Amino acid sequence: MRLKRKDLLGIEELSAEEITLILTTAESFREVSEREIKKVPTLRGRTVINLFYEPSTRTRTSFEIAAKRMSADAVNISVSASSVVKGETLKDTARNLEAMRPDCIVIRHASAGTPHMLAGYVGCSVINAGDGAHEHPSQALLDMLTVKEKKGRIEGLKVAIIGDITHSRVARSNIYGFTRLGASVTVAGPPTMLPPGIEALGCKATTNMEAALKDTDVVMMLRIQLERQKESFFPTIREYSRLYGLNEEKLRKAKPDAVILHPGPINRGVEISSEVADGPYSLILDQVTNGVAVRMAVFYLLLGAAREE
Amino acid sequence: MRLKRKDLLGIEELSAEEITLILTTAESFREVSEREIKKVPTLRGRTVINLFYEPSTRTRTSFEIAAKRMSADAVNISVSASSVVKGETLKDTARNLEAMRPDCIVIRHASAGTPHMLAGYVGCSVINAGDGAHEHPSQALLDMLTVKEKKGRIEGLKVAIIGDITHSRVARSNIYGFTRLGASVTVAGPPTMLPPGIEALGCKATTNMEAALKDTDVVMMLRIQLERQKESFFPTIREYSRLYGLNEEKLRKAKPDAVILHPGPINRGVEISSEVADGPYSLILDQVTNGVAVRMAVFYLLLGAAREE
Amino acid sequence: MRLKRKDLLGIEELSAEEITLILTTAESFREVSEREIKKVPTLRGRTVINLFYEPSTRTRTSFEIAAKRMSADAVNISVSASSVVKGETLKDTARNLEAMRPDCIVIRHASAGTPHMLAGYVGCSVINAGDGAHEHPSQALLDMLTVKEKKGRIEGLKVAIIGDITHSRVARSNIYGFTRLGASVTVAGPPTMLPPGIEALGCKATTNMEAALKDTDVVMMLRIQLERQKESFFPTIREYSRLYGLNEEKLRKAKPDAVILHPGPINRGVEISSEVADGPYSLILDQVTNGVAVRMAVFYLLLGAAREE
Repeated sequence: MRLKRKDLLGIEELSAEEITLILTTAESFREVSEREIKKVPTLRGRTVINLFYEPSTRTRTSFEIAAKRMSADAVNISVSASSVVKGETLKDTARNLEAMRPDCIVIRHASAGTPHMLAGYVGCSVINAGDGAHEHPSQALLDMLTVKEKKGRIEGLKVAIIGDITHSRVARSNIYGFTRLGASVTVAGPPTMLPPGIEALGCKATTNMEAALKDTDVVMMLRIQLERQKESFFPTIREYSRLYGLNEEKLRKAKPDAVILHPGPINRGVEISSEVADGPYSLILDQVTNGVAVRMAVFYLLLGAAREE
Repeated sequence: MRLKRKDLLGIEELSAEEITLILTTAESFREVSEREIKKVPTLRGRTVINLFYEPSTRTRTSFEIAAKRMSADAVNISVSASSVVKGETLKDTARNLEAMRPDCIVIRHASAGTPHMLAGYVGCSVINAGDGAHEHPSQALLDMLTVKEKKGRIEGLKVAIIGDITHSRVARSNIYGFTRLGASVTVAGPPTMLPPGIEALGCKATTNMEAALKDTDVVMMLRIQLERQKESFFPTIREYSRLYGLNEEKLRKAKPDAVILHPGPINRGVEISSEVADGPYSLILDQVTNGVAVRMAVFYLLLGAAREE
Repeated sequence: MRLKRKDLLGIEELSAEEITLILTTAESFREVSEREIKKVPTLRGRTVINLFYEPSTRTRTSFEIAAKRMSADAVNISVSASSVVKGETLKDTARNLEAMRPDCIVIRHASAGTPHMLAGYVGCSVINAGDGAHEHPSQALLDMLTVKEKKGRIEGLKVAIIGDITHSRVARSNIYGFTRLGASVTVAGPPTMLPPGIEALGCKATTNMEAALKDTDVVMMLRIQLERQKESFFPTIREYSRLYGLNEEKLRKAKPDAVILHPGPINRGVEISSEVADGPYSLILDQVTNGVAVRMAVFYLLLGAAREE
């Protein structure tokens, strides 16, 4: 079986079957990174371009390692403000890159929808590695893989997503993903960070963190962008932390075996206390490990499986 | 057959036979990038260093992809203003890099002649990826390859090169290359951008774009460095575009089947209109594709074929 | 035989046997870089992360080339001031990188002891590529390899290390290494650059360069950090050069066949004259070549030989 699409642009457009296919494939790739020789020849001779318009050590490294473990050639392009490419339209950049015959372009961009435009311009595969506050599909897939690994299922679980929902592509992709697989999702955050009408995505919303945590199986904390604090979405960090930071006391509202996720990097003592982040139910590092597996699976399903068409 | 030289520093010093050898070799490598497995083992175990003193996403990426498709190891070094290497003489940088036993150094530098100095300092191959306003030989080779692909020949063609001739290494390399292969070249640009005595390179020169275009087979537009506009080589961009920008109306002066080239990135509506850039005779994307093939061929002829000596 | 440790953090903790094992292994890898096909399959499927918190073209390139010639996958991470990773604790960065299952992290950091902390946080191998003014073990190993190559031995040699001893991790690692192998080491520099109590490391110390050079077999010059000059460790560069710069006249104090080392990049005419740097007894470029061999050996002994456990 394979994905009947050339691109991974968002979770919104994926069916439950497609998500499950990616997760199942990722499960089979997980053991590659646990081997001594962490390499399969599947994508030898394929070229992956990591085109990052926003700096991201972590996500870029995960995609680069995933590509190399599949034996693909990985080429990194960081588009800083000073780059010549900046003067070009996205369409021209896209067409020019395509002319070098990559098999896949992984793109991160500050503007929502940019990967979708790129995918329309090129014949090769495009993977959205984060577009503005819109989607970050590989993050949601690794989150679902991590929950499935520990809980054995997604369906029927209660998931709470806490933090700056308005600006979070991670929240958006996860709302789509977890609800598509039959979980129920509640988002919580200060009124300034809860977009009106978010319930239309299929989740519940509340400004009361404790209410969101009640009897939940999964607690997903979002990173607070401290650099955004000057825009004053909440009075002080201390106040944010008191109301919306996760600590052991608040965690008691959740189920006793509730697992904790965070996309990283974490702000210790702000949105999550160290005792919770390092505690027995934290899956934060499993997420990172699963990130490589999910990206290997996505490369495989978009590029490799095509051979068997 | 092979190149009897260790370096590719400029087109000026190449014979017609050498240029033809590179183009013929590039033609045979072109199909590698059209395969599913875009990789040949020819340069396995060879090390290519991309040493860029000027930022260049596009050219560096093309060389990196070419090296990797030949199975060479590619190492990128960007020398920014802050780098320690900056305090070193070029000779010391050269000798130190050579001591790590690369097979080839690809260098871009703002000063004309730097690659030639480097080639004198090291025993490994050196490829000039652009030196000031002097030469950019791999660009001219890919331009010739592209024209030959569409026209079936270079000899006897009329070529017009339009724009800032004075500051263009692309123009200079192409004047050498196309005239060497028997084409006739006319350059055109505003008086402030036409270097006196340029005819000594074997071309004609005019400030009248229409005259240059008359009955031409190939129109090569150069990129206007908008950032150079503050030096005021022409009154306004609008005026430049009116006099020296290519649009469909001006293109009618050329032969009906004239092809359009541009080294990219293009400034749409400045030196070239979108209708021409995206039109049926535009070869701009073919140039990019041929760039990878030409660079694979140059690596092969400088490094790989040596084995058969 | 193999190293019974997972990390290379400093020379201080290495026994003479361990140093000798690394040097002997490096000797056997030296010829790989002299082959036409500079590649062995030993570390195929292993992942090496180069994590550089300080910019270093030279050392990073040497580690990257060494990894690739061992067939490992190399991933570069440059942590600039602006990086998101900066907001993270070292422990979180460490754990996150480890979760991607690298086999080795090569780290350079401005703070002494950072690689040791990193090594405590992760199960994979850690190599110190320079930590503040503390240690730079692979540099000392390549220095010892270079001396051993020319002199046939280390034991019984007289070694003079000249320059800014206080701020030099190169000096510190070499004092440990050469004395451990039975050489006698004298350090010399201006009083402001000679740390009190340095003799506790097993060397002699003097402010008189000529005294240090007397009858020495090895002269190791250190790089003067010209950018540190504003802190005024000596009145003028000219005065430093007159008192502590190496030229042919001063070199006459050493043995007639004394060899010259410098970790690079050199400041010609400051700490070393061109006639000496380029003279017949200069081993500066041999050091660079041996740097790749030593790093291949360290990768092999930390990662590859483990398979034979």
